[in-house]
Amino acid sequence: MQKEKIHIIKIGGNIIDDPEALQHFISKFSAVKSKKILIHGGGKIATVFGEKLGIDSRYVDGRRITDDETIDLVTMVYGGLVNKKIIALLQASGCNAIGLTGADANIIPATKRSNQDIDFGWVGDVNQKIDSKKITLLLENDLTPVFAPLTHDSQGHILNTNADTIASVIATALTDDYEVSLIFCFEKNGVLIDIENEQSVIAEMDEKTYADLKVSKKIFAGILPKLDNAFAALKNGVHHVMLGNATELDELIDGNAGTKFLMR
Amino acid sequence: MQKEKIHIIKIGGNIIDDPEALQHFISKFSAVKSKKILIHGGGKIATVFGEKLGIDSRYVDGRRITDDETIDLVTMVYGGLVNKKIIALLQASGCNAIGLTGADANIIPATKRSNQDIDFGWVGDVNQKIDSKKITLLLENDLTPVFAPLTHDSQGHILNTNADTIASVIATALTDDYEVSLIFCFEKNGVLIDIENEQSVIAEMDEKTYADLKVSKKIFAGILPKLDNAFAALKNGVHHVMLGNATELDELIDGNAGTKFLMR
Repeated sequence: MQKEKIHIIKIGGNIIDDPEALQHFISKFSAVKSKKILIHGGGKIATVFGEKLGIDSRYVDGRRITDDETIDLVTMVYGGLVNKKIIALLQASGCNAIGLTGADANIIPATKRSNQDIDFGWVGDVNQKIDSKKITLLLENDLTPVFAPLTHDSQGHILNTNADTIASVIATALTDDYEVSLIFCFEKNGVLIDIENEQSVIAEMDEKTYADLKVSKKIFAGILPKLDNAFAALKNGVHHVMLGNATELDELIDGNAGTKFLMR
Repeated sequence: MQKEKIHIIKIGGNIIDDPEALQHFISKFSAVKSKKILIHGGGKIATVFGEKLGIDSRYVDGRRITDDETIDLVTMVYGGLVNKKIIALLQASGCNAIGLTGADANIIPATKRSNQDIDFGWVGDVNQKIDSKKITLLLENDLTPVFAPLTHDSQGHILNTNADTIASVIATALTDDYEVSLIFCFEKNGVLIDIENEQSVIAEMDEKTYADLKVSKKIFAGILPKLDNAFAALKNGVHHVMLGNATELDELIDGNAGTKFLMR
């Protein structure tokens, strides 16, 4: 039997920080007829509030160190301000959205990252396939889940968790029940051959292309985790994986924009 | 047919602001065997963060004026920090909780308060009986809803809404399906004849007692909205209404502590 389609869409800071871009995205997202889930990142707003509150953002190897003050900050901003603003806008746009973190309904239990060298603080890794029952319950009752990038450790603590990871984990969990399309949106139009040229999108990418591009140094450090995530999702049974610009949501859904990832 | 019992429990700042009291309450609440819903207020923490962020708390007639900055603040603190901390603690305590605002799943659409004399800002009033379907869906699937005191205006805005009101509105909505017990917890042991004496709890209160106490000035301004709320809930079909101290949750549930409100 043909499985029903679902679109899992992840948006990042470039949309969240720009009210006009966000409103445009919300309209497009609300109009998507199939089942859908939204995962949002944090945006710069956590850093802005952090500075006002005198909380230093500390980074090691590009990763924010999530100390006690910082986990409270991101819980407020991602789980409260950003998530509920998006929910209110979606409701106004006719989409019956429900805002969640991985702690809610125990949807994404995670593990505090342990590292001998660096203490990343309250950061969560998701090491196993999650149970999709509660997500499916919401979907089957015409609700659209909207996830903030937070999980929990089952011991009473919220954990800061990469939004791309949350999207992949949810997409993977739903492959048993749906034909899952996972769309990572970011500030570029796709994987670019020439980082300066938004028209140089690589339309299709398999692991061989990826390996070749890495060897020839055509693609750079910042995008590598996204690409690893994309291929991992395909290997875990996600049916379609796209990377592109949130302003082209309809085209990404139709496979007519961005970079499509392929297993060959 | 006998309806199934549900306990709707509202807690305020005295529990939320005190980690030890909160943990004690969480344990007691998690152990409640029947279906249950938690509604939490804001606590002082919003004021603390507001001061750090340089947001003035403005009050008119004891009501906070919710300007643009303040609605963002309370959305962060109530909907994010407080709600998700409670969810993480409940999960750790074996209670499968799901955090919500009235915007989520469109559970509590509200109306921005309009007043000719004072602009209260982004404050929501709930003027009609809400649809209980989405709450019932969660309850029937072994989830425990936990509400932050926020609603939405169906036009894209979150609204600050009194937590006692949220509790009453939810309790009323569920009376068709459940035998509803509504328990307002606050910092006192119940309605006190002598405000200085925690032992002077009025065990049972009907509208005549209430009127007499008002006339004799034995009870004072601060508690009147709570009592009006309690009697309104009874009139709207809520089966049991109690007011007492969250430290005595079990006794309140059994009707052996606090003030019980009666229709005669």
